[in-house]
Amino acid sequence: MQRILYSLCAADGVRHYSPHVWKIILAIKHKGLRVELKPLSFADIPNIEGGGYSAVPVLNDNGHLEGDSFDIAVYLEKTYREGPTLFDGEGGVAMARFVEAFTQNVLHPPMSVIVLMDMHSMMSTQDQAHFRIAREKRFGKSMDEIFADHEAELKAFPAKLAPLRAVLERQQWMGGKTPLFADYILFGAFQWARICSPVKLLSNDDPVREWFERCLDLHGGVGRAVPAAAS
Amino acid sequence: MQRILYSLCAADGVRHYSPHVWKIILAIKHKGLRVELKPLSFADIPNIEGGGYSAVPVLNDNGHLEGDSFDIAVYLEKTYREGPTLFDGEGGVAMARFVEAFTQNVLHPPMSVIVLMDMHSMMSTQDQAHFRIAREKRFGKSMDEIFADHEAELKAFPAKLAPLRAVLERQQWMGGKTPLFADYILFGAFQWARICSPVKLLSNDDPVREWFERCLDLHGGVGRAVPAAAS
Repeated sequence: MQRILYSLCAADGVRHYSPHVWKIILAIKHKGLRVELKPLSFADIPNIEGGGYSAVPVLNDNGHLEGDSFDIAVYLEKTYREGPTLFDGEGGVAMARFVEAFTQNVLHPPMSVIVLMDMHSMMSTQDQAHFRIAREKRFGKSMDEIFADHEAELKAFPAKLAPLRAVLERQQWMGGKTPLFADYILFGAFQWARICSPVKLLSNDDPVREWFERCLDLHGGVGRAVPAAAS
Repeated sequence: MQRILYSLCAADGVRHYSPHVWKIILAIKHKGLRVELKPLSFADIPNIEGGGYSAVPVLNDNGHLEGDSFDIAVYLEKTYREGPTLFDGEGGVAMARFVEAFTQNVLHPPMSVIVLMDMHSMMSTQDQAHFRIAREKRFGKSMDEIFADHEAELKAFPAKLAPLRAVLERQQWMGGKTPLFADYILFGAFQWARICSPVKLLSNDDPVREWFERCLDLHGGVGRAVPAAAS
């Protein structure tokens, strides 16, 4: 049995940082499975498994290929029914899409600005060039112009977490009594920031921080095993 | 069998407008059940079923009393298992809490400002006095000062719907292939605005508007049967 997860990695070959890959690392561990992480540069992505993919993660599960983090989670749920559920019902699948949409539309854009330069610093020279072109295209302005907003974005960030905070004051996990894929979707975002940047996004008494610390301890502490960015 | 839902109502005795009551009107119809709506003034709330409630909805289901819209939905799900599910699994319950938190933390505050004066206008004189005191206490400023922000809030509103829009571009309902209680949570907010105010919150081509129109048609068009506020 061969299970390979293709993943973007810092120049050190150790710090896998993609939020979307982290969702799947936890989802695979949740199912009680092992996986080999294959570190890539941006330039390697078009060549994954013969081509056709434009982003990570890509999973090769003993020959079955699956891209896109949500699709991979659905695949794992269907394929490994004996393991703990990632969605706990069809309603859980449908609404995990809302958690994904919230994470990508509300959290990722400001986080991209806040961690921009720290993320750039951890990459190989080759990846830095690729990253600069991609980010400048996405934002329609230079890296320096994007980063000019980072203090304002950091200040505005805690208020954006209000809906998460309200849920996590009521229940331990987004999934309720146990973590589900929805937790891993959100975890991916905060783990990405933690690995890339020493910036403090969450105050110590924030219920979202307490939840994140619980996530870092899940599945043998696989999240915590990657060191936080040094300040 | 007696099933009574206590509900806030406009001075006309017809336009039930509470977003939280609307969640339950649709949840009850979803289960294929009938209900008698009991119109109330704010001053009546402390006297519902002998007292103890500070908000609507309150459901009297053949003698069983339940307050709080989410608790009522969970009660309906447990009690009427033969009807269509409102959550489609425990994951659906847990994440409907996130839809609730998003609705109450992200949508309700600006909507409260936008519809403030129209909402006030539809109330009895007695309710107007109660409403003014409660709103001025909640916002910490006068009604006129609250309403001064309504144009800015209206302009900023569509961007707040980005996570909903992303989901509803992908699937017909928040619940996936069929509506679930999560849809009714969101519907309650937009139905409240529709009944109180002629202000146009959603452009015609917004997927959120198209979803709302589908919601208005559900369960024999119970939502559409209440006329929209005249402009």
